[in-house]
Amino acid sequence: MPKPKLLLLHGPNLNMLGMREPSIYGSATMAQIDQCCQQLASELGYNLSCRQSNHEGQLVDWLQAAAGEFVGIVINPGAYSHSSIALLDAIRAITIPVVEVHLSNIHAREAFRSHSVTAAGVVGLISGFGADSYLLGVRAVAQLLADPLSSSS
Amino acid sequence: MPKPKLLLLHGPNLNMLGMREPSIYGSATMAQIDQCCQQLASELGYNLSCRQSNHEGQLVDWLQAAAGEFVGIVINPGAYSHSSIALLDAIRAITIPVVEVHLSNIHAREAFRSHSVTAAGVVGLISGFGADSYLLGVRAVAQLLADPLSSSS
Amino acid sequence: MPKPKLLLLHGPNLNMLGMREPSIYGSATMAQIDQCCQQLASELGYNLSCRQSNHEGQLVDWLQAAAGEFVGIVINPGAYSHSSIALLDAIRAITIPVVEVHLSNIHAREAFRSHSVTAAGVVGLISGFGADSYLLGVRAVAQLLADPLSSSS
Amino acid sequence: MPKPKLLLLHGPNLNMLGMREPSIYGSATMAQIDQCCQQLASELGYNLSCRQSNHEGQLVDWLQAAAGEFVGIVINPGAYSHSSIALLDAIRAITIPVVEVHLSNIHAREAFRSHSVTAAGVVGLISGFGADSYLLGVRAVAQLLADPLSSSS
Amino acid sequence: MPKPKLLLLHGPNLNMLGMREPSIYGSATMAQIDQCCQQLASELGYNLSCRQSNHEGQLVDWLQAAAGEFVGIVINPGAYSHSSIALLDAIRAITIPVVEVHLSNIHAREAFRSHSVTAAGVVGLISGFGADSYLLGVRAVAQLLADPLSSSS
Amino acid sequence: MPKPKLLLLHGPNLNMLGMREPSIYGSATMAQIDQCCQQLASELGYNLSCRQSNHEGQLVDWLQAAAGEFVGIVINPGAYSHSSIALLDAIRAITIPVVEVHLSNIHAREAFRSHSVTAAGVVGLISGFGADSYLLGVRAVAQLLADPLSSSS
Amino acid sequence: MPKPKLLLLHGPNLNMLGMREPSIYGSATMAQIDQCCQQLASELGYNLSCRQSNHEGQLVDWLQAAAGEFVGIVINPGAYSHSSIALLDAIRAITIPVVEVHLSNIHAREAFRSHSVTAAGVVGLISGFGADSYLLGVRAVAQLLADPLSSSS
Amino acid sequence: MPKPKLLLLHGPNLNMLGMREPSIYGSATMAQIDQCCQQLASELGYNLSCRQSNHEGQLVDWLQAAAGEFVGIVINPGAYSHSSIALLDAIRAITIPVVEVHLSNIHAREAFRSHSVTAAGVVGLISGFGADSYLLGVRAVAQLLADPLSSSS
Amino acid sequence: MPKPKLLLLHGPNLNMLGMREPSIYGSATMAQIDQCCQQLASELGYNLSCRQSNHEGQLVDWLQAAAGEFVGIVINPGAYSHSSIALLDAIRAITIPVVEVHLSNIHAREAFRSHSVTAAGVVGLISGFGADSYLLGVRAVAQLLADPLSSSS
Amino acid sequence: MPKPKLLLLHGPNLNMLGMREPSIYGSATMAQIDQCCQQLASELGYNLSCRQSNHEGQLVDWLQAAAGEFVGIVINPGAYSHSSIALLDAIRAITIPVVEVHLSNIHAREAFRSHSVTAAGVVGLISGFGADSYLLGVRAVAQLLADPLSSSS
Amino acid sequence: MPKPKLLLLHGPNLNMLGMREPSIYGSATMAQIDQCCQQLASELGYNLSCRQSNHEGQLVDWLQAAAGEFVGIVINPGAYSHSSIALLDAIRAITIPVVEVHLSNIHAREAFRSHSVTAAGVVGLISGFGADSYLLGVRAVAQLLADPLSSSS
Amino acid sequence: MPKPKLLLLHGPNLNMLGMREPSIYGSATMAQIDQCCQQLASELGYNLSCRQSNHEGQLVDWLQAAAGEFVGIVINPGAYSHSSIALLDAIRAITIPVVEVHLSNIHAREAFRSHSVTAAGVVGLISGFGADSYLLGVRAVAQLLADPLSSSS
Repeated sequence: MPKPKLLLLHGPNLNMLGMREPSIYGSATMAQIDQCCQQLASELGYNLSCRQSNHEGQLVDWLQAAAGEFVGIVINPGAYSHSSIALLDAIRAITIPVVEVHLSNIHAREAFRSHSVTAAGVVGLISGFGADSYLLGVRAVAQLLADPLSSSS
Repeated sequence: MPKPKLLLLHGPNLNMLGMREPSIYGSATMAQIDQCCQQLASELGYNLSCRQSNHEGQLVDWLQAAAGEFVGIVINPGAYSHSSIALLDAIRAITIPVVEVHLSNIHAREAFRSHSVTAAGVVGLISGFGADSYLLGVRAVAQLLADPLSSSS
Repeated sequence: MPKPKLLLLHGPNLNMLGMREPSIYGSATMAQIDQCCQQLASELGYNLSCRQSNHEGQLVDWLQAAAGEFVGIVINPGAYSHSSIALLDAIRAITIPVVEVHLSNIHAREAFRSHSVTAAGVVGLISGFGADSYLLGVRAVAQLLADPLSSSS
Repeated sequence: MPKPKLLLLHGPNLNMLGMREPSIYGSATMAQIDQCCQQLASELGYNLSCRQSNHEGQLVDWLQAAAGEFVGIVINPGAYSHSSIALLDAIRAITIPVVEVHLSNIHAREAFRSHSVTAAGVVGLISGFGADSYLLGVRAVAQLLADPLSSSS
Repeated sequence: MPKPKLLLLHGPNLNMLGMREPSIYGSATMAQIDQCCQQLASELGYNLSCRQSNHEGQLVDWLQAAAGEFVGIVINPGAYSHSSIALLDAIRAITIPVVEVHLSNIHAREAFRSHSVTAAGVVGLISGFGADSYLLGVRAVAQLLADPLSSSS
Repeated sequence: MPKPKLLLLHGPNLNMLGMREPSIYGSATMAQIDQCCQQLASELGYNLSCRQSNHEGQLVDWLQAAAGEFVGIVINPGAYSHSSIALLDAIRAITIPVVEVHLSNIHAREAFRSHSVTAAGVVGLISGFGADSYLLGVRAVAQLLADPLSSSS
Repeated sequence: MPKPKLLLLHGPNLNMLGMREPSIYGSATMAQIDQCCQQLASELGYNLSCRQSNHEGQLVDWLQAAAGEFVGIVINPGAYSHSSIALLDAIRAITIPVVEVHLSNIHAREAFRSHSVTAAGVVGLISGFGADSYLLGVRAVAQLLADPLSSSS
Repeated sequence: MPKPKLLLLHGPNLNMLGMREPSIYGSATMAQIDQCCQQLASELGYNLSCRQSNHEGQLVDWLQAAAGEFVGIVINPGAYSHSSIALLDAIRAITIPVVEVHLSNIHAREAFRSHSVTAAGVVGLISGFGADSYLLGVRAVAQLLADPLSSSS
Repeated sequence: MPKPKLLLLHGPNLNMLGMREPSIYGSATMAQIDQCCQQLASELGYNLSCRQSNHEGQLVDWLQAAAGEFVGIVINPGAYSHSSIALLDAIRAITIPVVEVHLSNIHAREAFRSHSVTAAGVVGLISGFGADSYLLGVRAVAQLLADPLSSSS
Repeated sequence: MPKPKLLLLHGPNLNMLGMREPSIYGSATMAQIDQCCQQLASELGYNLSCRQSNHEGQLVDWLQAAAGEFVGIVINPGAYSHSSIALLDAIRAITIPVVEVHLSNIHAREAFRSHSVTAAGVVGLISGFGADSYLLGVRAVAQLLADPLSSSS
Repeated sequence: MPKPKLLLLHGPNLNMLGMREPSIYGSATMAQIDQCCQQLASELGYNLSCRQSNHEGQLVDWLQAAAGEFVGIVINPGAYSHSSIALLDAIRAITIPVVEVHLSNIHAREAFRSHSVTAAGVVGLISGFGADSYLLGVRAVAQLLADPLSSSS
Repeated sequence: MPKPKLLLLHGPNLNMLGMREPSIYGSATMAQIDQCCQQLASELGYNLSCRQSNHEGQLVDWLQAAAGEFVGIVINPGAYSHSSIALLDAIRAITIPVVEVHLSNIHAREAFRSHSVTAAGVVGLISGFGADSYLLGVRAVAQLLADPLSSSS
């Protein structure tokens, strides 16, 4: 029996990881993060697919299409976190659990980054642990799937 | 050789867990959460001490005194998250890593709960996974101690 | 002689209608709404083309290209209503009448939905009548084309 | 069997239509609008009564008294739209459907006109089509009465 | 010797009590409240007159005229509490004590209801006890008249 | 040949002049002010009619009806200055000149009195000279009628 | 059978009553207020315990512990009313009725005092009657206990 | 016996009158306005001195020095009205009456012009009557000197 | 040896130049602007590539990919200037100089256009010179490349 | 005859001085500051007692109790300066002079530190001179006691 | 025939260039910038006069007097950009083109520097290129004079 | 060897001290303050020069020129404290220490006086001690010069 599938979505500019402002975002590349997350997911009994787009609409498309194929989603909406009602609506329109992650601590940066529009639609948010934010996010969604009643919403 | 020690701090009203608005905060009691966290900490090679106070000043006292005895801190500042500059200053005054956790998703509740003053001082924040937020927090602080360079701040 | 053509544009997440939060958006699907609108348009002497996209840029592309082919537009910009200056500029850049519609009453929901950026560029706005908002929109644009002087701008 | 009755309420200064700032409000008089609406209502199977007042309290009185006599209401609250909590409360206090209409596009004028307090209580809002806003409003309320479940509220 | 007279003023929509949103405003009618208040006033040595109006100007008229006839006033300004400087000025223009009451707890509802413009002019405010708010208001004004120095202003 | 007519409108609570907070509003009564203004108007070649109402709607009614009978208006909108869009619209709907006056200096009192909504519609504003504000207002409107081009709008 | 018990909590600086700014807070001391309240409570069939603290955390402790021992609470949170989410959460965490009282009329003082954070959690609020605010509060809580359905919340 | 002296102060850019945006400020030059004002002042029994400066500090200097030489001041602070606390302080530091005038109706222009900082210090304000604002200002200050008790401040 | 390459990016609706609101944006078409810029770039020793997109994500893609191929960028982000954190992050993620240009003076238009989010990431901004803004932008980026130390950032 | 006594109060985290962010707060410890202040106080003829607490309530307790024992107070309220109405009320409730000091220049740091709530109650504020702020504060309070009329309040 | 003349105005503190915060403003002195600009102006067929003042009023004086002598102006209003309505009015009062320049990128600094009041009156703005901002400004004004229709305003 | 020199700058309206609102600013004249400060400076080993101007530009001129002649500055910027970015920039442009003083406690007056723009550039601020604020300022700057490392900035 195939493993159930998780989806990891990276928003705009996350494909530049390792090259972009490493003092803020760390030196790990997106590919390295994907690989670590896939390994952890596999240990937890899931297959993890990873995608990145700079297009808000593409992220909405993927979220909408995810419901039939995936059982849970980890998303770093990047800059779109702070303004995208379209992403918020897409997250609310699907019924599988979505976890939001951020590399940097959004509460310790510019004021316009401390507010997350999309976070109002997700189950929970993990922010500030660099690449580990993603790993904690995979673990969180796996735990949600294992015991859906354990979390308050 | 004794295990290094972690400190888990609960802020105001968290001693009421299980009794207080269970639709928001879940049915687990603080004692149950403490026990789960201690077990996980132990598996990860740490001893975990747990304390709760409704007094902002007491939490500041504990944070200040923690540096000599503990190697990392997980804190749920509860209602004080949203206004306490004193806690923020105390977190910044010590040099061991501090992780902030919340049971509920603070970005999906009343507007005054979506802003965390204390979060500007911690390494990272985990919010919305119920009792699992604490477990993810313990794991996050352990990972920070294992590999202090892996996180951006 | 072929009938003059109208364009119906659906913004992000409207392809999820019937599946997404039916207590807010009703149980009609986008295909059903399109069919009803096409039938009404036909009765009023127009052919109606229907398109949907989750991409802000695609909606801008379609608006720009519409001028040569269509004589009027009904648009539900969805979440982009509340922030898209690009859509506002595109609406202002074309000279055929544009009518904005919303399924739900945007003035009775979250504060961030009560303001429509795009509405500053359209002839008029219809909001809150569920699928009927679209039908009223088709009727409104037909009336504008029949008697262009009858409306104040 | 007599036709069921609809009520059309005009708020302050709408009795000046045709005389007042015609570049904004058009050249139709209130009497002409009333006549057109009554004709349309009659075609749709309703008797339509029309009233105007410059007094906020009078509009509240009429709304309260409407429930026993009328089956639906179209209201243009005029300037009171932007501030009257009393009208909002009156609309919420009655259970027959109320539709709000505006001659001009309130989202394309001064900032203080883009917010409608009363709109938070009505089923839906139609704005910007000049005298046609009223006709679309009559049609909308008739449709609501024909098929009360078709609209989300 | 006739009993001194108190005036009870109800603002807009309070004549709908018992019919209007009973989950917020309770099931007692205005007439029942008036009767209870009159009985209590009588026990305390006063005659109580009761009036209601949906017209802001009427409430101002009554307040202005009250000074010669009444020795104290209990007022529920309803929706006008939140915006009426005219009522505030009228309350300040008379010298007999005025007490403001609200059925619901205005601090626990929509943000626009948590601020009372008129409250800046009254001696004190009682809010949230349903019909009992009125009874407490009658008692408060009686106490003020019995011992005018006992209250801070 | 009869003298052309001017209208003097007093808004809410101005009938209380002389009784109400004399340290702010002076000791002159409304009747005394009316008499002084009528005498000055007469010297300047006009008949002056004076009216007062606490009802916003009544003031709107009088403004609307003034155009046929009067050649100019002096208005002290009182508390309604600070919020009434209905009065602003009525002032804009008529074409005879309207001058706004205030007894006290509205820029030197509570913040909510420093903004005048109605002032955006009048030719000019005179504020702070007590009863003399009215006399200056009569003089200003007479000058506007004598030489309509002399004022910028 | 012993009388059921009520708890009266005084927040910061209320132990200074009679000494502190008597023009605002009156000349009664806290001990005098406690005595009057105990007498009234006794007449109404209750024992009343009175406590004061300048410590936010102490007030939270007492609220949490009250549920087992007391049947209702009257609280004057003093300065903490205006900012304490911790007190708000404690009030919401217990199920016995809580009534908030203030000596002065908080709506007639500095802007920062007109908002009460804690008031969003209590049944109702009484403000502005000096020492009588407390007596009305005792009466209100007694009435709530006598007839729990009589108040809307 | 020499006539008592009045001072007329023009702020920045008023020396450009007649040349600057005549649709807003009219076609009269500053010299013409000065001449008209001097003639009116003379009729009323005063000598009027006129000065203009683009320098905020110069206007402050003149205000400070005026007290010994002049008995009243008419000032159009121009652009400095909207921000100059230094002018406000200078006006408050002297005890002779100061009247503020504006050519255009400051409440009907850009938002930043509707607030006058300096107006909080003057006796009264006259705005919107073009050159006549100055004449009304001279008359107002003369009336204040004739009957200092007639105005509320 | 081939000339180094510059990139010119046009944001949404700039492909409509010459057709769209010419009173604001001028009558030059985008193709004409591109041609002028290419000629100037050539004179300055550069090849200039020109691209336009209505898609925020496409602009981000192009910015990310530019670093390897181009030595400098001139961008008119159009409507996305005012809200796009994704574009800001993309500009910051690359190390070649980026200059922002606008046809119209963004500080002299609607309030929402006076703020540029993207401008916080570029070297400098040129706004208000119509098609010349682009030419000045090309010149500015060429100068930056010629003498990278001459500009403050 | 014993020297009159002064009280020096340190708020939260000031016990960490020398260890906490020395680039902001300097390298002097609290004990060193206390010793310098005691020596200066002694030279000026006073005994100085020094206390520190992280508890807002404790600081309130000490302020209330100070009046009988001390003749003046120097306080650094630390983080509580920016939000504590309870401390403000306590300062206002006592009649001996209170001087507020800060190590760093609060106007040159984060926005939330530039406002001091408590400063509205003290005689004066000294900020930005590091440990010298305390010494200047001792000197200021001594001067106030020597010549109570020399300061405006 | 003499060359037409341009005016270059430097606002406050620009005479400190080269000495003041060189990391922000660069190391070029004002004299060096003037010389470069004069040379470029000469190449473009103009004589350039350069002036500096720390006095807002002096800059207004110079702007007013410029119209008769100069054909175009480049101005760096420095700190006065962010608040001076007097400068804005002076720029609007003259009819020759004015271009605003800034050394640093005002959108990338403190929030209060990102808004330019004066920019609402100029043709266009150039910001962020250090001394080159001035050279681009000279070029821009020359181009405006060569082809006055080429720019939208 | 001559004593090193200090500069004392008084901003607008401070030359009116003793005459202007003595209840706020005290009865000492500026000359008396200067004399006291010169005596104290002399005792501390400095010569003190004193200047006053109502002109913002003059104060900027003096600050710029001070660096070569003086070793430290005490400034009371008066009303310009609350808005002058030009003064802030001038203070930052020089490298000798600047101390800001105010006679009254700016945090206890009108809201617009509680913010000091200039204070963001000075070493420290002393406010509320009347004429003693100046003396404490002289002492503070002398201490800074004696021990430049003792203060955090």
